[in-house]
Amino acid sequence: MILIGGSSDLDQDNRGAFQEYPQIDAIRPHCKHASRPTTIDAIPQHIEKAVRTALYGRPGATYVEIPGNLVTETVDESTVKSSPPIPLSRPVSIPPESLVRSAAEMIKESQRPLVVFGKGAQWSERGPIQLQQFVTATGLPFLATPGGKGAIPDNHPLSIGPARSTALRESDLIILAGCRLNWMLHFGQPPRFADNIKIIQIDVSPEEFHQNIPTTLPLLGDVGETAQVLRKSLKGWKFDSNSKWMKTLHQKAEKNKETVEKMINDESTPLNYYAAYKAIRDYINQNDVLVVNEGANTMDIGRTMMPSVLPKRRLDAGTFGTMGVGVGYALAAALYCRDYSPKTKVLCVEGDSAFGFSGMELETIIRYKLPCVIVVVNNGGIYRGLTTEDWKSVEGDPTLQCPVLSLTPECRYDEMAKAFGGRGVLCRTVDEVRKALPEAYEYVEKEQRPTLINLIIANDSERKAQEHDWLTRSKM
Amino acid sequence: MILIGGSSDLDQDNRGAFQEYPQIDAIRPHCKHASRPTTIDAIPQHIEKAVRTALYGRPGATYVEIPGNLVTETVDESTVKSSPPIPLSRPVSIPPESLVRSAAEMIKESQRPLVVFGKGAQWSERGPIQLQQFVTATGLPFLATPGGKGAIPDNHPLSIGPARSTALRESDLIILAGCRLNWMLHFGQPPRFADNIKIIQIDVSPEEFHQNIPTTLPLLGDVGETAQVLRKSLKGWKFDSNSKWMKTLHQKAEKNKETVEKMINDESTPLNYYAAYKAIRDYINQNDVLVVNEGANTMDIGRTMMPSVLPKRRLDAGTFGTMGVGVGYALAAALYCRDYSPKTKVLCVEGDSAFGFSGMELETIIRYKLPCVIVVVNNGGIYRGLTTEDWKSVEGDPTLQCPVLSLTPECRYDEMAKAFGGRGVLCRTVDEVRKALPEAYEYVEKEQRPTLINLIIANDSERKAQEHDWLTRSKM
Amino acid sequence: MILIGGSSDLDQDNRGAFQEYPQIDAIRPHCKHASRPTTIDAIPQHIEKAVRTALYGRPGATYVEIPGNLVTETVDESTVKSSPPIPLSRPVSIPPESLVRSAAEMIKESQRPLVVFGKGAQWSERGPIQLQQFVTATGLPFLATPGGKGAIPDNHPLSIGPARSTALRESDLIILAGCRLNWMLHFGQPPRFADNIKIIQIDVSPEEFHQNIPTTLPLLGDVGETAQVLRKSLKGWKFDSNSKWMKTLHQKAEKNKETVEKMINDESTPLNYYAAYKAIRDYINQNDVLVVNEGANTMDIGRTMMPSVLPKRRLDAGTFGTMGVGVGYALAAALYCRDYSPKTKVLCVEGDSAFGFSGMELETIIRYKLPCVIVVVNNGGIYRGLTTEDWKSVEGDPTLQCPVLSLTPECRYDEMAKAFGGRGVLCRTVDEVRKALPEAYEYVEKEQRPTLINLIIANDSERKAQEHDWLTRSKM
Amino acid sequence: MILIGGSSDLDQDNRGAFQEYPQIDAIRPHCKHASRPTTIDAIPQHIEKAVRTALYGRPGATYVEIPGNLVTETVDESTVKSSPPIPLSRPVSIPPESLVRSAAEMIKESQRPLVVFGKGAQWSERGPIQLQQFVTATGLPFLATPGGKGAIPDNHPLSIGPARSTALRESDLIILAGCRLNWMLHFGQPPRFADNIKIIQIDVSPEEFHQNIPTTLPLLGDVGETAQVLRKSLKGWKFDSNSKWMKTLHQKAEKNKETVEKMINDESTPLNYYAAYKAIRDYINQNDVLVVNEGANTMDIGRTMMPSVLPKRRLDAGTFGTMGVGVGYALAAALYCRDYSPKTKVLCVEGDSAFGFSGMELETIIRYKLPCVIVVVNNGGIYRGLTTEDWKSVEGDPTLQCPVLSLTPECRYDEMAKAFGGRGVLCRTVDEVRKALPEAYEYVEKEQRPTLINLIIANDSERKAQEHDWLTRSKM
Repeated sequence: MILIGGSSDLDQDNRGAFQEYPQIDAIRPHCKHASRPTTIDAIPQHIEKAVRTALYGRPGATYVEIPGNLVTETVDESTVKSSPPIPLSRPVSIPPESLVRSAAEMIKESQRPLVVFGKGAQWSERGPIQLQQFVTATGLPFLATPGGKGAIPDNHPLSIGPARSTALRESDLIILAGCRLNWMLHFGQPPRFADNIKIIQIDVSPEEFHQNIPTTLPLLGDVGETAQVLRKSLKGWKFDSNSKWMKTLHQKAEKNKETVEKMINDESTPLNYYAAYKAIRDYINQNDVLVVNEGANTMDIGRTMMPSVLPKRRLDAGTFGTMGVGVGYALAAALYCRDYSPKTKVLCVEGDSAFGFSGMELETIIRYKLPCVIVVVNNGGIYRGLTTEDWKSVEGDPTLQCPVLSLTPECRYDEMAKAFGGRGVLCRTVDEVRKALPEAYEYVEKEQRPTLINLIIANDSERKAQEHDWLTRSKM
Repeated sequence: MILIGGSSDLDQDNRGAFQEYPQIDAIRPHCKHASRPTTIDAIPQHIEKAVRTALYGRPGATYVEIPGNLVTETVDESTVKSSPPIPLSRPVSIPPESLVRSAAEMIKESQRPLVVFGKGAQWSERGPIQLQQFVTATGLPFLATPGGKGAIPDNHPLSIGPARSTALRESDLIILAGCRLNWMLHFGQPPRFADNIKIIQIDVSPEEFHQNIPTTLPLLGDVGETAQVLRKSLKGWKFDSNSKWMKTLHQKAEKNKETVEKMINDESTPLNYYAAYKAIRDYINQNDVLVVNEGANTMDIGRTMMPSVLPKRRLDAGTFGTMGVGVGYALAAALYCRDYSPKTKVLCVEGDSAFGFSGMELETIIRYKLPCVIVVVNNGGIYRGLTTEDWKSVEGDPTLQCPVLSLTPECRYDEMAKAFGGRGVLCRTVDEVRKALPEAYEYVEKEQRPTLINLIIANDSERKAQEHDWLTRSKM
Repeated sequence: MILIGGSSDLDQDNRGAFQEYPQIDAIRPHCKHASRPTTIDAIPQHIEKAVRTALYGRPGATYVEIPGNLVTETVDESTVKSSPPIPLSRPVSIPPESLVRSAAEMIKESQRPLVVFGKGAQWSERGPIQLQQFVTATGLPFLATPGGKGAIPDNHPLSIGPARSTALRESDLIILAGCRLNWMLHFGQPPRFADNIKIIQIDVSPEEFHQNIPTTLPLLGDVGETAQVLRKSLKGWKFDSNSKWMKTLHQKAEKNKETVEKMINDESTPLNYYAAYKAIRDYINQNDVLVVNEGANTMDIGRTMMPSVLPKRRLDAGTFGTMGVGVGYALAAALYCRDYSPKTKVLCVEGDSAFGFSGMELETIIRYKLPCVIVVVNNGGIYRGLTTEDWKSVEGDPTLQCPVLSLTPECRYDEMAKAFGGRGVLCRTVDEVRKALPEAYEYVEKEQRPTLINLIIANDSERKAQEHDWLTRSKM
Repeated sequence: MILIGGSSDLDQDNRGAFQEYPQIDAIRPHCKHASRPTTIDAIPQHIEKAVRTALYGRPGATYVEIPGNLVTETVDESTVKSSPPIPLSRPVSIPPESLVRSAAEMIKESQRPLVVFGKGAQWSERGPIQLQQFVTATGLPFLATPGGKGAIPDNHPLSIGPARSTALRESDLIILAGCRLNWMLHFGQPPRFADNIKIIQIDVSPEEFHQNIPTTLPLLGDVGETAQVLRKSLKGWKFDSNSKWMKTLHQKAEKNKETVEKMINDESTPLNYYAAYKAIRDYINQNDVLVVNEGANTMDIGRTMMPSVLPKRRLDAGTFGTMGVGVGYALAAALYCRDYSPKTKVLCVEGDSAFGFSGMELETIIRYKLPCVIVVVNNGGIYRGLTTEDWKSVEGDPTLQCPVLSLTPECRYDEMAKAFGGRGVLCRTVDEVRKALPEAYEYVEKEQRPTLINLIIANDSERKAQEHDWLTRSKM
């Protein structure tokens, strides 16, 4: 991401100008690169470097601050030495051949291999294709981290996402592709991982190897390109699909799926989270949908319930877990898809507390007629809410505050959409959602206007019990 | 302001913890002081220092970051050495007697003296009383900067706010009390000020003297206490209320008031800004109202149209001009007034674009039943909007974006309030506002619930033409 | 201190210029203010603000960075709007009269009052005179912190420095003037202070009140001016010079002086630290000497042994304890005294390890013929060294490193001075120092050239045993 | 480089501890990574990460700050989970095969190809060998930047360093290996480079591609490994050694060498810079010497005059041009070579002004008996000095300061070495240096003690006139 900011005029620096501030200093901790041109001629070079630095290598936000007087100044364009356009595709590399061969040997020797990929697989230009070819050719079971979802379709036969805990804990060799052993992967520590786990790690950042536990074989390079040379090095070798390991994983996955399926099929109202997602899941399975997703339970469960079958079709709160990004992401995604990928449908699924951070952007989405559908999964709180009944009893007692994690029960975000000149729909049942979603996209199609679906669910719905308590504290 | 933040656990630092971040470094540019206790025993001292540093001297925000493990850890309270409570009233000082005498002499010799006070007059504990006594005793004409408004009532007979430009330009001696010669006062430069202007400056920050132009006589000290010793030193001297200077100022003020009054009395709909404020002004004149105000024109004109007759009754975007603070300020002010100043009515007047930054907080205000009234002055844009007609023509052309400074015309923020379970009222005329405001406060009284008044005005209303173009660029 | 730095040219920013660096960001944590003009016209304002900010209020270093192209650019001087010179004397203030009266009452009621002053007494323009008048008029016993030394002469009859520990521990009321209760004063904690100690604190920084323990009566204001109004408020009251408190203090002081005197008079060679200082002390007592002093024991003992009888005559490693500053301070002090205070003799007393940080500046001192004398108190190590004998035995063993805290025994810094074209003298006895010092200043007088005196002392000399171990860890 | 720093105790944070300081914040702009463990258990992980981050990827300094209480605390070692040792050899990568093929094609098509390599070639573990194999196999002419010197020997027949300006200006294709187009390479701009220059750039940092001018073909990867795959891809192709390009370069190089040789052979005293280096050059040519070099002219000319024939045998002020690093580098290099590479001779050649920054470290070098020889090339100033005659005339006039760029003429640094218990030699002629150098290394051999050679040269010697004035401003 490249941010361009304005600042006070250069000649008012140090004097108490309007919004005079050491912005570059203040933004530097948050950015990969920040700079401030002080002449109009220097602007093209600063922009070029900001774009390049944001995209190349490990990507990151960059910032260029343009002083107010340069914003309003004019210049004879012919005198400006513009930077020539640089290629937007990132330079890539692969590991040396000898290491690739070693990796191939390790894979062949493993009894319980596992591929885990993360957002590095998506940032890799040909990563999704090449990684999928690798997995398909080798028959290795795989998991995606939230950032990696979609690089290979969730519905690929080798996906064992539903057996995640078992897979991580019992594997003897993990091929870690573009993801980090940070809190999301429990720092690679027992009991979530085997004590003597072997790691083949593919990453563009050498500093990421050996983080928290030793990397057995570091493969420095682009995820996709490296997967390709590794596949070639394996020369047609394939993991036994009837091995004990595959059976264990598939059985565990099936069992977990059944547990979830029960909840999905419990359509009693108010709906539980899984049932709430039922019709959404089905719609996604039948369409090219770019999903934006944030919230607490809404995002956790959404990661399971909303299948990712295409790469770069999912935007969520990310590793940092920053809430409030969803509506802005939806806005940007709709703008992009409108102009560059009109067949892709933008669907933003928000927890109600997450929506509360930046729901006002709905006005912008409606005003700009951006083609998207926003579903607010509304349980009236963070993790849990209060029933309208309970709420009233709390209201009745003037000495009580309403509990800080509860929001207004059954808040009418659909009416808010109408107030902004848009379309809002209230749903309480699976059937209502099943009807509302396609209608909303038809409305997008015909009227080029967004819809907000306010999906009321039970205030006490929770996510499926987890096997391990350990580290759930830091498990978002 | 003291911020308490949480962070990742100490033992996960450096390992990729959930939301691990160098928060202290990142927040330091924005704070007067920031610290991070690393043991539970150290917390009281960190909090005490943060509170003290925020309040004492030149006030400013402070930040204490508490690692996650300390948040959840428990301790035997009897073992914690708590810091004793420190006095919240700030230590004050006054200038040495000889300087006070010199200042008195300068004032007596001036032909065209002027008092200008800023937010330092409000931060001074007894500032408003002592400054008002000074002005009343000496008969000196005065102006308030936006941050100073209310320290002395706007309706004081010596207030010459409506003649601001004339007063600044033609004065030969300005007594600057707790305010800075920054962009808001045009850096003290000609032609907005006389070239040989003399300045007596009262401030708690010695570094502020001589900023941009030389301070003729710096008086280091608390604004109120210093005004008091200066008053005593003047021993009953009084500026001639029939002097040419007073006549010039009063005439100019009258003339400007007449111009404004014409606009106020033009009640044709859609209303202009001044007429929109008419009933609000009248209501404020008859009640104890704490005003929150933000926006572009809405705030500029609100500073003129909403009289401040009590100190510390006004919160706006401040020197830095940060938009989006209004609804949060209203929330905090209503919470404070409910518990500590129940007779004070909280009124938040927002431009529609400003409301767009953080309007979602309305849900919180409604949920917590906070006693306040929010008026959205709705012109459908920033500075200017589009009519519904023009809007439709823009919509008709698929190649056009709607202009970036325009918002949805006649957006129904009142309906949004209803959607959140609150009360919303739409107004288009002065009479409607005149009726809606007292009703809203009656509702607050009876039901302990807020109201949002959506006040539709003309999309092409602007503020009164200014005499000087110079520096208006940086004039918010 | 105002630093002016150069940087790379503005138009090479962001491109990899020679020494391109975010200097302003990097220096900000170390400075009170830092700025970078980007046009030649802006330079005067930046310099003016840097000077003002460095001197006014609580003083501190400031920094102005001038881009290379502005350094070499020329401008028609008549077109530059220069900032008018601002007064270098700092604005001062005093506490309100009522607080001064309260302080006077507290002082009168105290049984065991004590004045402790620090560097704030020196920064106060008339601080030394006014504080001395206060002490003399009131008969209150006093202590100076290292930074305060000289504000009142060490040889004043009320100085009870030699009874420091007893005074701090047993006092019931401390008047703290321009100094902080930081590590140098043991954070104001028991057992170094009474548990219920009362504190009257005079300071220009309100944030310093209540730091670590509550301030009973904070007096915000300039140290000197406040001492003066406090003296006037006490109207001739005087503490009983025959009180038990005064007797206790004087007895303890005498006893401690005797212990030290024994060491001073032990002239056996190699000399101990106290004897090494004997002739230096006597010389200082008879001349106007500006002392620069740094080292570990050399500075600790120098604070006792080198009397300060005039204000602003002492420069040492300061609160932060930064080693390596001495020779540079001596250089600057000699340059200043040569031109502005020619009767003041500059004497720099360095521990040998401290000299090792920046001894090369000796070449500059010699080259510029700066009028000063440098004494290296040479014990061959930090805290302790090795004898030449022990050293040889260490050298004999190729497997041993020489101990890291030892330096070359009897290193010939005097010969180093000669190598740089200067004068060097080696001393080993009190008599030799007694002869060498006046000779060195005669040489300064006649030849305008410095002398380095290399004073060899015992490598196992230590400072007098301390009564309290507590907190000596952080006692420099 | 990994720095370990100490800080004040955790429990004294925020209270005014001895040397309490936000060190992590302050050091962050200068470091690749900085962290502060807060428990003793966390120390191993922090050290491991600091070492890894410093070495892996683009190398850089890292910092770990250990609070004082952890420094003195003890722990049962068996309870500490130590990080397993990580491999110190850096992970490497190579570009994808297709890009390597494209690069090979570009090279074959070029008329005037040129290899330029920088410090990236040295950081590459097998870079020097693989790059030399590449150059030898392809017959391509090459240049080293100062940081790259020695990766391929300067005396390699394809080295055309003496024709640097011509080579850069007239080449049509530059293979840039591990070096940046920053100020040292004139930002890649005309007239120092052809306007349509093609660039094949090999680098580990993708962000460095396209900096200042577009990279025609970016090859992301380790310099050495990439050179190797490129060599293999060229399959024995070789550039015509009789081509016009090679003749032009060799002729220009010969001509420049002749000019320099004339200066070298002008042995009149006081010596010029080139003659001063004559015997040093000859000694280096016949021995395995690690050169440390800093100064203004001393370093510029030293880069030409001191051949680098082995990799990693040269330490100088680097891209940033920081003076004062030489004696410390010599100290560290001598310590390293003593223990790990005893046949390598450490030679530190310092300009006298550069030596003035940190010459005191000489005491440490002598005390530790470190095996090295320091030559101070002494012209009595920065760029130029004053003759003893001129100096005396300056001294005679009390109103004059000695010129700021002049140092003491003929300053006796050799005597300084003796004062510290070491060996010093004064030289003025080529023959004296030719004798002194081997003697010094014999002394190192026999006595395990260093020597300082003070080599007095003409105060008005300058470096050879440059062809281009352009950008010399930023040419160190």
